[in-house]
Amino acid sequence: MRGSFGRHFKLTIFGESHGGAIGMVIDGIPPGTRIDEAAIARDMARRAPGNDPTATARKEADRVTIVSGLFEGRATGTPLCGMIANTNTRSGDYAQLRAKMRPGHADYAGQVKYEGCNDPRGGGHFSGRLTAPLVFAGSIASQLLAQRGIAVGAHIASVADVADAPFDPVGVDAPTLARLRASRFPLLLPDREPAMRACIDAARAALDSVGGVIECAAVGVPAGIGSPFFGSVESVVSQLLFSVPAVKAVAFGDGMALSAMRGSEANDAMRWRDGRVVFASNHNGGVTGGITNGMPVVLRAAIKPTPSIARPQQTVDLQSGEETTLAVTGRHDPCIVPRAVPVVESALAIALCELIMDDAATKALKGGRDE
Amino acid sequence: MRGSFGRHFKLTIFGESHGGAIGMVIDGIPPGTRIDEAAIARDMARRAPGNDPTATARKEADRVTIVSGLFEGRATGTPLCGMIANTNTRSGDYAQLRAKMRPGHADYAGQVKYEGCNDPRGGGHFSGRLTAPLVFAGSIASQLLAQRGIAVGAHIASVADVADAPFDPVGVDAPTLARLRASRFPLLLPDREPAMRACIDAARAALDSVGGVIECAAVGVPAGIGSPFFGSVESVVSQLLFSVPAVKAVAFGDGMALSAMRGSEANDAMRWRDGRVVFASNHNGGVTGGITNGMPVVLRAAIKPTPSIARPQQTVDLQSGEETTLAVTGRHDPCIVPRAVPVVESALAIALCELIMDDAATKALKGGRDE
Amino acid sequence: MRGSFGRHFKLTIFGESHGGAIGMVIDGIPPGTRIDEAAIARDMARRAPGNDPTATARKEADRVTIVSGLFEGRATGTPLCGMIANTNTRSGDYAQLRAKMRPGHADYAGQVKYEGCNDPRGGGHFSGRLTAPLVFAGSIASQLLAQRGIAVGAHIASVADVADAPFDPVGVDAPTLARLRASRFPLLLPDREPAMRACIDAARAALDSVGGVIECAAVGVPAGIGSPFFGSVESVVSQLLFSVPAVKAVAFGDGMALSAMRGSEANDAMRWRDGRVVFASNHNGGVTGGITNGMPVVLRAAIKPTPSIARPQQTVDLQSGEETTLAVTGRHDPCIVPRAVPVVESALAIALCELIMDDAATKALKGGRDE
Amino acid sequence: MRGSFGRHFKLTIFGESHGGAIGMVIDGIPPGTRIDEAAIARDMARRAPGNDPTATARKEADRVTIVSGLFEGRATGTPLCGMIANTNTRSGDYAQLRAKMRPGHADYAGQVKYEGCNDPRGGGHFSGRLTAPLVFAGSIASQLLAQRGIAVGAHIASVADVADAPFDPVGVDAPTLARLRASRFPLLLPDREPAMRACIDAARAALDSVGGVIECAAVGVPAGIGSPFFGSVESVVSQLLFSVPAVKAVAFGDGMALSAMRGSEANDAMRWRDGRVVFASNHNGGVTGGITNGMPVVLRAAIKPTPSIARPQQTVDLQSGEETTLAVTGRHDPCIVPRAVPVVESALAIALCELIMDDAATKALKGGRDE
Repeated sequence: MRGSFGRHFKLTIFGESHGGAIGMVIDGIPPGTRIDEAAIARDMARRAPGNDPTATARKEADRVTIVSGLFEGRATGTPLCGMIANTNTRSGDYAQLRAKMRPGHADYAGQVKYEGCNDPRGGGHFSGRLTAPLVFAGSIASQLLAQRGIAVGAHIASVADVADAPFDPVGVDAPTLARLRASRFPLLLPDREPAMRACIDAARAALDSVGGVIECAAVGVPAGIGSPFFGSVESVVSQLLFSVPAVKAVAFGDGMALSAMRGSEANDAMRWRDGRVVFASNHNGGVTGGITNGMPVVLRAAIKPTPSIARPQQTVDLQSGEETTLAVTGRHDPCIVPRAVPVVESALAIALCELIMDDAATKALKGGRDE
Repeated sequence: MRGSFGRHFKLTIFGESHGGAIGMVIDGIPPGTRIDEAAIARDMARRAPGNDPTATARKEADRVTIVSGLFEGRATGTPLCGMIANTNTRSGDYAQLRAKMRPGHADYAGQVKYEGCNDPRGGGHFSGRLTAPLVFAGSIASQLLAQRGIAVGAHIASVADVADAPFDPVGVDAPTLARLRASRFPLLLPDREPAMRACIDAARAALDSVGGVIECAAVGVPAGIGSPFFGSVESVVSQLLFSVPAVKAVAFGDGMALSAMRGSEANDAMRWRDGRVVFASNHNGGVTGGITNGMPVVLRAAIKPTPSIARPQQTVDLQSGEETTLAVTGRHDPCIVPRAVPVVESALAIALCELIMDDAATKALKGGRDE
Repeated sequence: MRGSFGRHFKLTIFGESHGGAIGMVIDGIPPGTRIDEAAIARDMARRAPGNDPTATARKEADRVTIVSGLFEGRATGTPLCGMIANTNTRSGDYAQLRAKMRPGHADYAGQVKYEGCNDPRGGGHFSGRLTAPLVFAGSIASQLLAQRGIAVGAHIASVADVADAPFDPVGVDAPTLARLRASRFPLLLPDREPAMRACIDAARAALDSVGGVIECAAVGVPAGIGSPFFGSVESVVSQLLFSVPAVKAVAFGDGMALSAMRGSEANDAMRWRDGRVVFASNHNGGVTGGITNGMPVVLRAAIKPTPSIARPQQTVDLQSGEETTLAVTGRHDPCIVPRAVPVVESALAIALCELIMDDAATKALKGGRDE
Repeated sequence: MRGSFGRHFKLTIFGESHGGAIGMVIDGIPPGTRIDEAAIARDMARRAPGNDPTATARKEADRVTIVSGLFEGRATGTPLCGMIANTNTRSGDYAQLRAKMRPGHADYAGQVKYEGCNDPRGGGHFSGRLTAPLVFAGSIASQLLAQRGIAVGAHIASVADVADAPFDPVGVDAPTLARLRASRFPLLLPDREPAMRACIDAARAALDSVGGVIECAAVGVPAGIGSPFFGSVESVVSQLLFSVPAVKAVAFGDGMALSAMRGSEANDAMRWRDGRVVFASNHNGGVTGGITNGMPVVLRAAIKPTPSIARPQQTVDLQSGEETTLAVTGRHDPCIVPRAVPVVESALAIALCELIMDDAATKALKGGRDE
């Protein structure tokens, strides 16, 4: 818990957004795995700031330097540590950052938690910048999954009230997901992009921000991964998704809509096709009883609007004990949804690696059926 | 993972719905804690079948026998094991249960996972009956929280399309939660009960089932509990909530609705009241940056409709390799939402105990500020 | 930690020696594993009291009732819970047990830890009786290992100053280990038994007790199991061995004696035999760098003398605050070493299962070398 | 497991001895803790090579750069990452390092484990150099313990067959431990130093190496820390000690010698002194039933002789499949025992932090005794 995730695909993240560097340690990459650093760089770039007009003007290269666990291009099997320099740090008026609490941010909760000792610069360890290590790990996880024929991808399901089409939960396929991963503004209906961008621009013009929904899918996941109860696919995936600052709701399959259905609608009928069991629908998002059923895993995550807005907001000054207003200045994304797409993919990819490894452990000592 | 949760308030569950007994081991109850077995029995009864016309006619006393960890009415501090006898087991045609997959159930995923070895009777370890240990643990967790002035309670937010009023996320209080916990059909607007029951009755009459939404709150939670990233309040709570079979979506605060808001709406403004920081609204559900902010923790969980329905459904026979239809007979709830209320409360209560204990561990070795 | 071990072969133990029952939950047995209950009973009997003149006269059947996780003779893959009834409980003068601290026992440390709330009857959760669940789990672990050609066995290396021969660390083989497991007083040199028994009888006659050393080996363990640092074979095995009350020292290979050797003596030379690497000696006990090297894993555990002795000993009365003497009456083993043999075997067998499962998890997502 | 230790004082280590850097992440330092970097540097220097004629001539500054978790001289409470540059790397004939297995090293076991992908330079992740992160963490742990009046220190109990006096297990005190920590060659009887150094010099002259024993103590540890079974003090400490390459035996209190005692000798009698319970002896090393009893915690760890020796040794060439001889050239310590002293102290200090934090978690939700 806290800074580490997983018991198999073990991820530890560290850093503050305006400290010397942020980074991560991944323990559990199979020895000999060829690491495609170019693919990692592409995934990092999708999350990095400054690459899109919707996002903050602040540029960070987010180049990862691997300091351990890699030898001659392959994972050694020992802990892999990567560092990302903070090239864009700020040396401002820390005292004010500690005094005036930004609404919607972790400032106040964090001050209480860390008793005023947390690094206040740029949100410190709470910064969305700490999702960069997640994307690094997720990119490696996606590479491992690809070897097993599993593909993960996501699109912007909505920005404010402008929606993309949803995934076809039965037919979504790897080429579609690959196409989405190649885009900085991934949509199933690319013609929705202008309306979404207009929505973001309007928020920016109003010194405000907007949120959205990201829909993510994994295809090629074999049936039988995950466990009932505490190791359910939904439990493991949601633990990671809710680690992402700004995610406030997570839904699998038809999610909240299932609550209004009858059983006869919500149950996915089963059929035989070419000697395999298939499902005629996928209201359960590829997971029943916490275990994958061979259908695409489909989920949605709600991203709240960026709390950093230039509009004056009512808040408190912890030093003076007075009420005050605060306009968060600086370079902030009016909408982080596009940049959050690879983060959501990463959460799903990491969780699937963890679950597949768990399944393998369980079966390691399996005997023959006749013994 | 799998059968165990937590590193502080450590819960292990075991059992099959039609085996000899189900039960749980809780490790981490402070020594000397007086265990209120009557309160546990009341919570168990709210989840137990057969106590309400909306639920299955199958009656199980769900009486817990504590076999360790309790001495002269107080927790010893060592692992507490409780057993719940399965008084209502079935000895039917197992072969058929293994062959015909019930749509919407874990039958198929479980057969793949456990390679046909899982106990097929009544869903085995996948049964909703395994939520009884969660309620037992949750009831103890609620008792521990009550000592700290923290109250947890939930209500039926909706059944199908009939909705109760939502919690006032700022003003919800302990007496309201206590009143809800005393009810078998807890509603903020009790006059919605007839419409909800009618909705359930209609589903039953149609040999079908309905789902719903449960809204849960905790009040009195101090600010500063939880962690950024993998130990976020949302991560820990959601891991437990998604352990509950039938939960397919989890939302904190305004949840999915936040995705359509602007930052200026979603950010909760802060004020001083009597020397304390308070929030003017609670769109974030009492959690920012993964850490409690002192406001009520508010969440919703979507419960899918009971998959066991008497209507014939299309499915497969794994033995014969043929398509077939299946009408699930027996005593099944047309709506499990009322019985799931204490399960959702339990998930939140257990998570809060875990998080408060984690926070205490972190501060155990704190020195004076002057050193 | 505390009542649970492992992240793959997950064991939770519970119970007090004079409560209703003790037991354990094992999570991680591969589905379909045929459980040999007769073999378990044999292992349990080796640990159970009352079966040998060296041991306590108190008889406990230590029959395990499996209440979950088993169906038609095979593990379901879900948590397996077994219960062992306490048939021989005592209802004595608890107040005195709480007041007068038995020297060498956990009484005083436990009273401080549990603030006087621990079950004082018969040592409560601290009782050596709680090693019965370890033996149950160890017996299952041994069955899983046997499927992989791995055998575990142990012998009494010494009782007080009477020593058995040590294992041949290079040549110890499975038939030897099987022969040892079939004995209640396992020795490599059976003619040492009379001297050892005489030693125990002398201690009993003196109202005293004696300790000893148990040497344990595993053969057939493939090279490459374990990890450097925190997951080293020695780390995982020793965590389990030091869980056993009475174990105060653990040594691998030549252990303490290695500290007096030169490198040229301690290093195990390597050779080729039939296309395989073999070692000419085994001073390292089959483990280098925390990882198995294919040689027999060999370790020793020191068992302190039973603290419960009938001789009067100087102690304190916590109630009266006075010094006093205490003669521990009742049926106590003058030497628990023979009964501890299957406990030590179990610790090694459980650890090996955990480590092999961990290794399998690490390699689950391995790609081809060419990708 | 593997690269991470602990659930409270959480330590992750990474790196290869000849990669870019090694380092560690510590999660669980209380926010606001003032970090004494000078004290850390002193502890690091005791372990660092090149500072003593007994040790390797290879010099590494082992200066730690803290890249996160520290702000204005105090721990923020978020993960603290420190990096140690490898200033002394080698770019030799890797192919030969992969082919010829060094006896006594992890080379062969590691090749099997990591399938030939581990970084072969200087032992890679297996290098004793990876104990530097342990010392860094241990130094911080010692600082945290000092705030609670707990002191940890160790001395060279023996080198080969030259022994120092043992600790007085009852009377060892903080000033003695502080004096030992100030020495590069810590002894209770400083006049043994010449004989020990002569022993080391003789081994070096013979192109050989020697081992030894380190005895470590902690004083001021309150009674009641630790747990029965899997969380015993011995279990947690030994897990860390056996993580240290070269440690092959661990003993608490009188250790192996207890196996030859009678109960009446081994049991530590209790007395009242000034209203407190004290023990007249400390054969149990301050731990009974896995829990501290208020006496000094005393343990010994056996360090095997450095496997890298300049004498030709018989080994195999994995590439050619032939037997060969190998003389390990380069700068190697003929005796690592002096440098291992702070590593053993660190293992104990880290374990005590973990256990004290665990204890605090358990009591976090304790109610009043009257409720």
